[in-house]
Amino acid sequence: MATERDGAVGLGDVLSVVRTHGPLTRADVALRTGLGRSTVALRLEALAERDLIRPAEGRPSTGGRPASTFAFNPSAGVVLAVELAATNAHLAVTDLDGTVLEAADSAIAIADGPSTVLAIVERLGGELLRALGGRRRRRPLAVGIGVPGPVEYATGRPVSPPIMPGWDGYDIVGKLAAAFDAPVLVDNGVNLMALAEHADRWQQADNLLFVKAGTGIGCAIVAGGRIFRGSQGAAGEIGHIAVRDHDDLCVCGNVGCLEAVVGTVALVRGARARGLEIDGPRDLVELVKRHDPVAVSLTRDSGRVFGEVLAALVNALNPGVVVLGGELATAEPFSAGLRELVYQRAAPLASQHLQIVPSQLGDRAGTRGAAMVAIEHALDVAALAA
Amino acid sequence: MATERDGAVGLGDVLSVVRTHGPLTRADVALRTGLGRSTVALRLEALAERDLIRPAEGRPSTGGRPASTFAFNPSAGVVLAVELAATNAHLAVTDLDGTVLEAADSAIAIADGPSTVLAIVERLGGELLRALGGRRRRRPLAVGIGVPGPVEYATGRPVSPPIMPGWDGYDIVGKLAAAFDAPVLVDNGVNLMALAEHADRWQQADNLLFVKAGTGIGCAIVAGGRIFRGSQGAAGEIGHIAVRDHDDLCVCGNVGCLEAVVGTVALVRGARARGLEIDGPRDLVELVKRHDPVAVSLTRDSGRVFGEVLAALVNALNPGVVVLGGELATAEPFSAGLRELVYQRAAPLASQHLQIVPSQLGDRAGTRGAAMVAIEHALDVAALAA
Repeated sequence: MATERDGAVGLGDVLSVVRTHGPLTRADVALRTGLGRSTVALRLEALAERDLIRPAEGRPSTGGRPASTFAFNPSAGVVLAVELAATNAHLAVTDLDGTVLEAADSAIAIADGPSTVLAIVERLGGELLRALGGRRRRRPLAVGIGVPGPVEYATGRPVSPPIMPGWDGYDIVGKLAAAFDAPVLVDNGVNLMALAEHADRWQQADNLLFVKAGTGIGCAIVAGGRIFRGSQGAAGEIGHIAVRDHDDLCVCGNVGCLEAVVGTVALVRGARARGLEIDGPRDLVELVKRHDPVAVSLTRDSGRVFGEVLAALVNALNPGVVVLGGELATAEPFSAGLRELVYQRAAPLASQHLQIVPSQLGDRAGTRGAAMVAIEHALDVAALAA
Repeated sequence: MATERDGAVGLGDVLSVVRTHGPLTRADVALRTGLGRSTVALRLEALAERDLIRPAEGRPSTGGRPASTFAFNPSAGVVLAVELAATNAHLAVTDLDGTVLEAADSAIAIADGPSTVLAIVERLGGELLRALGGRRRRRPLAVGIGVPGPVEYATGRPVSPPIMPGWDGYDIVGKLAAAFDAPVLVDNGVNLMALAEHADRWQQADNLLFVKAGTGIGCAIVAGGRIFRGSQGAAGEIGHIAVRDHDDLCVCGNVGCLEAVVGTVALVRGARARGLEIDGPRDLVELVKRHDPVAVSLTRDSGRVFGEVLAALVNALNPGVVVLGGELATAEPFSAGLRELVYQRAAPLASQHLQIVPSQLGDRAGTRGAAMVAIEHALDVAALAA
């Protein structure tokens, strides 16, 4: 409950309504926050001092002189957004609206461990920030980073991440906070992609499932606009769920794991066994696009197997929307096979209004989500400290 | 944000802190709510007028005269709690602490449809309320009722409930509200059981999974103390998830559904096929207790199959606690087989701190949960109306 204990009460609320609904007059802000007009004036002044809001064009008045209005100022600072995948890193510097100002990609090997990989992030991030030149403040207000494995959310440390040797328990926050002199938010990359897709297109969906099908298999559950993390931050680790009628040995030591059957590594191996001469998953996707019957058939089967597991998740969670991301999601036979099995196996009540859609943000979903959490954190801190 | 728009601000908060932490002095209440002392005095007076709080014994003072203290008055009213299962109904009248004052069971057939079944609820509920005699107000402040199927939470109407023919879309709220002249809260019975187990013993667990294994198979997901319902209120409908290596035809028309393989109907059929002369699941559980090897083996296998599906849910949701309820959970070989497969198939990170425990409330979990939601609703309404 809000009480008038200190001078900052309502600051976050004022910032929030101006950001969401601005430009607004003082009277608009008072109406939307329930704060008194004198308090609103003080809060707006404090936010203007921090450059977070600025005077906007006067709105057409119904008579008399136009009232002054205030708008959020997305140029008050920048954030650095990072997505680390198994073999590459995406980085972006955005303003406080999430608009990308500078961006870069780099090949990495996540298995090289945190020292090597984060040195690349520091170097590349530093270059992007310097590239802003005199236009912006070069110190980011916050850094958001997604990694390809489970993260203990409270500390930002990876926990037993299967494809990240050397990263278990590593203090990513400490390392990057020192490098960029800014607060650092770490999360599982799939969670960040899910948040970005939800914010971008599916804000009205209370329950959204984001599934990623590529080298790694994962999912994220968005409920009421927030990530469902589970007890150890491991919710969504669906790659080792057992699938029917398959006994392939998985790297985890079990047999019949989803990832061992439908991941791109398994798919490429299966394609080679069927005589296709391909180097990696991109070649396979390419063959699929050229309607190679073997490639199409294998990819569709892979989607069917994934679809059976997804049907189980749809029954258990009854999401309104399933967003498909990752390399395989771009292959039409994969999503066709997946849909086929979901609609065959999910309970009618859970599937009758279900939408299964491809990711809209594609390979930018991760950095967009990372920027989002960095911005939210930066504005929270600004509101508290003002 | 709370604003001083009307005279009831903080009333719910005052009631809530007195209920949770009472007996409390006015100063305690002011401290815990952040409200001014004069506001606190007014709110306490309003709640006392409605009989919801009462003066309590003075606490030992550190010197000077003892300050007056106030406690929640659980005798201010009663609620009616109802759990409908496939073949029986439990009813209880409780005070506002959830203490059972009167209770009754009745054999029903849920498939007889709402008119027949709810007529029994009305008659039996009326008898329990009249049995309170002059001791209590006979009109319940609210009615909570659990049904064995998915419910659209906002309207309280069952949605395509598989084992409840005739109930689809039925207005349970309207029917019972007219009968008892009280607000009515309807939910899936498994959700109510989960809420009760969580409140009773696992309040510290952020994520709890309650699974019910009996004639029907279901589960409920408690996240942050609340039920995760999904888009159509169908979350937790796991009975028709496909299991490995089984092709039994299910009533839903698919093959290999969990319910068709491990539900008590399937289990009893399998036991008869193996030569056991039993009438129903209770006979089977009885044979298991007498260490009949065929019954033990069948039940353990059933637990293993359930465990494989549960392992998938544990991977996807990473719960801290799994509570086992329903008839089969009382058979030790069932839970042993289930544990075996969960610890074999769930990801180490998701299972290393996982507790799998039997329901503590047993067949009272449903009415306890129904009473809880009725009480919360009644107190919310009282706080708003005071």
